[in-house]
Amino acid sequence: MRKIINDPVYGFITIDHPLIFSILNHPWFQRLRRIQQMALASFVYPGAVHTRFLHSLGAYHLMSSALSELRAKGVDISPEEELAAKAGILLHDIGHGPFSHALEHVLVEDCSHESISRLIMKRLNEEFNGSLDLTILIFNGQYPKRFLHQLISGQLDVDRMDYLTRDSFFTGVSEGVIGYDRILKMLTVHDGDLMVEEKGIYSIEKFLVARRLMYWQVYLHKTVLSAEQMLVRILMRAKELVMDGRLSPDGSPLYHFLEGPAEIDLDRFCRLDDSDVEGLLKRWTRHEDTVLSTLSSWLIDRRLLKIRLGNLPTPAGPLEETRRTVARNLGIGEREACYFVFDGTATNRTYDDRDEKIRVLFKNGEVRDISQVDNALIHQTLASPVKKFYFCFPRS
Amino acid sequence: MRKIINDPVYGFITIDHPLIFSILNHPWFQRLRRIQQMALASFVYPGAVHTRFLHSLGAYHLMSSALSELRAKGVDISPEEELAAKAGILLHDIGHGPFSHALEHVLVEDCSHESISRLIMKRLNEEFNGSLDLTILIFNGQYPKRFLHQLISGQLDVDRMDYLTRDSFFTGVSEGVIGYDRILKMLTVHDGDLMVEEKGIYSIEKFLVARRLMYWQVYLHKTVLSAEQMLVRILMRAKELVMDGRLSPDGSPLYHFLEGPAEIDLDRFCRLDDSDVEGLLKRWTRHEDTVLSTLSSWLIDRRLLKIRLGNLPTPAGPLEETRRTVARNLGIGEREACYFVFDGTATNRTYDDRDEKIRVLFKNGEVRDISQVDNALIHQTLASPVKKFYFCFPRS
Amino acid sequence: MRKIINDPVYGFITIDHPLIFSILNHPWFQRLRRIQQMALASFVYPGAVHTRFLHSLGAYHLMSSALSELRAKGVDISPEEELAAKAGILLHDIGHGPFSHALEHVLVEDCSHESISRLIMKRLNEEFNGSLDLTILIFNGQYPKRFLHQLISGQLDVDRMDYLTRDSFFTGVSEGVIGYDRILKMLTVHDGDLMVEEKGIYSIEKFLVARRLMYWQVYLHKTVLSAEQMLVRILMRAKELVMDGRLSPDGSPLYHFLEGPAEIDLDRFCRLDDSDVEGLLKRWTRHEDTVLSTLSSWLIDRRLLKIRLGNLPTPAGPLEETRRTVARNLGIGEREACYFVFDGTATNRTYDDRDEKIRVLFKNGEVRDISQVDNALIHQTLASPVKKFYFCFPRS
Amino acid sequence: MRKIINDPVYGFITIDHPLIFSILNHPWFQRLRRIQQMALASFVYPGAVHTRFLHSLGAYHLMSSALSELRAKGVDISPEEELAAKAGILLHDIGHGPFSHALEHVLVEDCSHESISRLIMKRLNEEFNGSLDLTILIFNGQYPKRFLHQLISGQLDVDRMDYLTRDSFFTGVSEGVIGYDRILKMLTVHDGDLMVEEKGIYSIEKFLVARRLMYWQVYLHKTVLSAEQMLVRILMRAKELVMDGRLSPDGSPLYHFLEGPAEIDLDRFCRLDDSDVEGLLKRWTRHEDTVLSTLSSWLIDRRLLKIRLGNLPTPAGPLEETRRTVARNLGIGEREACYFVFDGTATNRTYDDRDEKIRVLFKNGEVRDISQVDNALIHQTLASPVKKFYFCFPRS
Repeated sequence: MRKIINDPVYGFITIDHPLIFSILNHPWFQRLRRIQQMALASFVYPGAVHTRFLHSLGAYHLMSSALSELRAKGVDISPEEELAAKAGILLHDIGHGPFSHALEHVLVEDCSHESISRLIMKRLNEEFNGSLDLTILIFNGQYPKRFLHQLISGQLDVDRMDYLTRDSFFTGVSEGVIGYDRILKMLTVHDGDLMVEEKGIYSIEKFLVARRLMYWQVYLHKTVLSAEQMLVRILMRAKELVMDGRLSPDGSPLYHFLEGPAEIDLDRFCRLDDSDVEGLLKRWTRHEDTVLSTLSSWLIDRRLLKIRLGNLPTPAGPLEETRRTVARNLGIGEREACYFVFDGTATNRTYDDRDEKIRVLFKNGEVRDISQVDNALIHQTLASPVKKFYFCFPRS
Repeated sequence: MRKIINDPVYGFITIDHPLIFSILNHPWFQRLRRIQQMALASFVYPGAVHTRFLHSLGAYHLMSSALSELRAKGVDISPEEELAAKAGILLHDIGHGPFSHALEHVLVEDCSHESISRLIMKRLNEEFNGSLDLTILIFNGQYPKRFLHQLISGQLDVDRMDYLTRDSFFTGVSEGVIGYDRILKMLTVHDGDLMVEEKGIYSIEKFLVARRLMYWQVYLHKTVLSAEQMLVRILMRAKELVMDGRLSPDGSPLYHFLEGPAEIDLDRFCRLDDSDVEGLLKRWTRHEDTVLSTLSSWLIDRRLLKIRLGNLPTPAGPLEETRRTVARNLGIGEREACYFVFDGTATNRTYDDRDEKIRVLFKNGEVRDISQVDNALIHQTLASPVKKFYFCFPRS
Repeated sequence: MRKIINDPVYGFITIDHPLIFSILNHPWFQRLRRIQQMALASFVYPGAVHTRFLHSLGAYHLMSSALSELRAKGVDISPEEELAAKAGILLHDIGHGPFSHALEHVLVEDCSHESISRLIMKRLNEEFNGSLDLTILIFNGQYPKRFLHQLISGQLDVDRMDYLTRDSFFTGVSEGVIGYDRILKMLTVHDGDLMVEEKGIYSIEKFLVARRLMYWQVYLHKTVLSAEQMLVRILMRAKELVMDGRLSPDGSPLYHFLEGPAEIDLDRFCRLDDSDVEGLLKRWTRHEDTVLSTLSSWLIDRRLLKIRLGNLPTPAGPLEETRRTVARNLGIGEREACYFVFDGTATNRTYDDRDEKIRVLFKNGEVRDISQVDNALIHQTLASPVKKFYFCFPRS
Repeated sequence: MRKIINDPVYGFITIDHPLIFSILNHPWFQRLRRIQQMALASFVYPGAVHTRFLHSLGAYHLMSSALSELRAKGVDISPEEELAAKAGILLHDIGHGPFSHALEHVLVEDCSHESISRLIMKRLNEEFNGSLDLTILIFNGQYPKRFLHQLISGQLDVDRMDYLTRDSFFTGVSEGVIGYDRILKMLTVHDGDLMVEEKGIYSIEKFLVARRLMYWQVYLHKTVLSAEQMLVRILMRAKELVMDGRLSPDGSPLYHFLEGPAEIDLDRFCRLDDSDVEGLLKRWTRHEDTVLSTLSSWLIDRRLLKIRLGNLPTPAGPLEETRRTVARNLGIGEREACYFVFDGTATNRTYDDRDEKIRVLFKNGEVRDISQVDNALIHQTLASPVKKFYFCFPRS
């Protein structure tokens, strides 16, 4: 039982265990084929239409490599632990809905995609007769060999390594390329924790800088931000209209979520994908509500709101004035104009030291944080968040 | 007025003329963002989710390179001709509907995508006040400088060069790689026709072999064939149900086409994209008709029909017998079982010599067909079509 | 004991056995660092300066992959056999001298590089106390598991796979790229012989076509041929002058070989590398003999003889006449002019069916030659040699 | 007059002016074919055997791109200036001798390779009848349009862009990859100076980090340092022996330089290349002087001195003691033992702000140094030099 899947990034990905097959073939996993990894970033980077399905497979591939490198260095990993870690990384994004970055808290209000992933794993575990017990322990960080969890979720996890590599490949932003293969070879385990060998310092620094660049150049690109904010506002407007009885369900599984259910319905959630959002957007282009139809048309046709990005918030004066003009031009109220004219902030840290740290293991047994090594590139200022203010408004 | 677009295949694509911008920003062109180039091939090659939008841009980029190479060799090309050829290649796929390879004659019966492209160009030309006059002449092969048409549509056109390069990039089938940059440098014009310089012979041979490989390994991959045939049958069944009044329109623009209109309605056609097909497939998974719901579920969840590919047709006996078994198992009639059990043929030629030929211009002025050069790799047998027979049926 | 070597082609190459280390560190193997794989081809492809050292390591890497793929398919390969095959491929080129393609039978008259490799292996085996016993059996084709020998030397050996991949990488001739990773995954063993699975047919066809292209476009490129023939003639002239006592040894290890020894002296041979040839060429640019100094200067400064390549031999008339002109211009005799004006032939076969064949194993157990499969690209004509005639003479 | 050269890094490099051809074909430029760009780094990175010839061509290619990008942005560059800048970059490394990094001040004492390049350009200018007048002005920084000089030599010159890209390609250290194509598109000219547009900040930061990584991971890799120091000491010893009359010239052009001439002899210098050094090293392996022969053998066979790299200098005690042991073991004096046991320092700065700075031009016209932008990655500490201490000694 052995299957080989072509991947433009790594060449071939090998699947060789029945449990991995069962996950792969499950309709809920197949759903990830219909959810793009980078959502609206393809408006700026038209090659970036790859799916969460392939990202999950890619991360699984890197997990396989990481585990076999660690084993070659003498780290004790049983076949059960290996399988559980592989299943865990394959499922790490299963809880993502469509356009997740933008819609995460819009579709399902108080629930992160990680929590949904956890719920889904639990359900799958029942279906698979407990085969995911160990996976769930590791995923939740409850397993003593902490490095297994850290490989799934941490500053050096294979999730990040895959998405940076993959997003950089599909966008064509070659500067985001990280040396994932070298980093994998530099990983080690010390006192149960995942660490990097001393000679890997420069690779890690480059990894963090590549990540920084990808954030500002791609993920938080101002045009992408504008498109995402438009999408968020379209769905907020739709919710409002549903509430007011001005928009009625037409069979799309998305309506259930617009009605703001008390509790998440997994079966319904696992039917959602990008086509539902796109389908409604296209339908709404012809809705009677000006806000809903205008924003939907604009987004579908890529006539995006103009956006200004800067270091200071937009003063209330110009904001109000722009709203008044827009209200006049579109023949809508000033409250409605807030859907077209708004501000907000985008934030990123190059190295988040509050979180899991990146630990370097020196030859003499010493352990230091990557920001504490000699002549560190990653200094304190990089650990503090960078905040940018954006201001969106229609093109005149 | 200059815009640079990131492309993972060529690096950067430059747009620098208002007409090209107008085309690019037109909703009908933006629609191509929502139509995947390789449709269901991503079931086998999960990276292959790139769109017709990016392919069109890529072909435009190669056209720019080809024209400037030819000019550097002294071929006379005016700025107007250059612009017209670029607009032509940008629009060459505008008439494609969703899942075009499979659905081309299912959605719009007697109309190829080229004819639709032509209709759309005519409409756009009106909108753009005649700026596409020359483009249309070239596209239709009515312009005296034949090589401009041959660059858009011929055995060595930039369309093929881009799709082979791009499909090979996104599938990860590195063997499909062609030396597009070298071929472009080997192109020349003689007596108004596009030709290849003598020293380009090996590159052209390799191009044809790469194309042959991509056909059998990717485009006509048996799993892809199976998925495409399932999709075709789902839509045929839907048409039947619409006819019988058992399936009623719900707002999807696709229904109009299922009702089999007398004439193509461009405005409706240009609203269609992949999400419409996916949306209906998902909805139909819960339809009361067993054929429609079963096939739709299977396709959505990638539980594809088994397929056998061989050199001989399936004998009527086994075909009938399998149909009877399936009818019994699924509780449907034998006529309905034909939707699950069927045969057909897939055909491809390595070098189609009936069509536009590939002409080689020798240093001494002689012109020969690529299959007529000394020690030719491309011999007569490769010009005749290879036909393979497939047989599809449900997994037991 | 584990070392990782960076390779731009495959990423990382892992060495993990003491015997492999011993070979790698041996001065005779280190010598391969100073012998370029493609010799004078760098006159046309300036990136192609990679060494036989790296090619040997690359082939070793592919051997490791091939063996582990075969093992995963159930082929029985013991650790000893694995080690022996790896040592064998690492040493397969150890008998190459400098500028081997051109000088193979000029420096050491009746001795191919394979024979020298065999002699060297024997000597190393003594040094390594018999650790190479099994390697030698395999290398000589005397071991019952024939596929091990076929992986080292055969139509599908890892030597070819590496050199095609590597030469294509370093020359930048992207069209020479073969899908080595896919071919490795398609290999299988049947009745002790190396074969290709049915679904690998297209990959193999492409491999043969890529090889054909590399031969005519790179290895037998007319400028490369010209440079090689110049080098051969320089050494022939030097031999003549040594014989006549007009050129006396100055400490270069090369002189020993110019004196035409009765028997090969391994210790001396294993001191030879590219720098010896280059050193003498540079010194000879100032020798009193016009033939020697002129040809040496021209080669060092890349002022190569003009070369015409065609399908017919050069008639004796023009040849003689050109010689007379050159004799007059350079003030040398007509016999000497033959060093500047000469003809010859270059030959290559796309698929050499006299030799080891490429066997395809079909699912039904049938075995067919690659040129005998349905719709074969590799037809009979490609198996016959293509012969081209060249004619070299000085630029006027 | 148009020639296309294959380059594995950029694909094709176009030469289209007689002056560029004349430079290219000059024996002094052809000499660069025989000088490796990375010298002894190939002991660690065996793929890194590319030559200064190809690097010079690559930098020329980037210069062509940079100039045409700048022109497209409206920067005024005349055809004469373009040609002069291209000739300048092609010749920027012409003054390099063999193993230049290590031997720069050993072979020719008080003369940097830049000064030699200048002398050579002067001589070539005479040969080419003044065609290099403008090139020399630009190269020397005496031409009013300063950006032309800055493109040849500055923090953002095309020399660096090519060598980082190329060295990273040939070593296989993918982390050294810089986004040279994006950087080129971000260049601009303001008040006569080369600057970077605001949106290029992240690319520049990544460029500096990639450079930092390449220095510590490749150029100053401890094994490379050890090999270089061995080579330096071998030549110092040879000089000493020549002085003492214990080593006598044998025709190698290198001896002239070992005799320590008062003034540089260009004609002799331009005959030197790697093969001269390699030739002598090989010959010296059999010299009677233990220091010369031992170090030469070790270097040729890659039995390198062990090296320790740290933040502190080696104390005198252990140094002396090791020397005594080595003197005893090799039967040489303690003064001679200094050739085998020695310490030293390696230094690098990530961003050298004393030198030419990297200026960022903001949209509002403001100009800031890259270390002064908001949330700068390149902070003050990175501008100060990092110094590491090494200690070399024989393996026991």
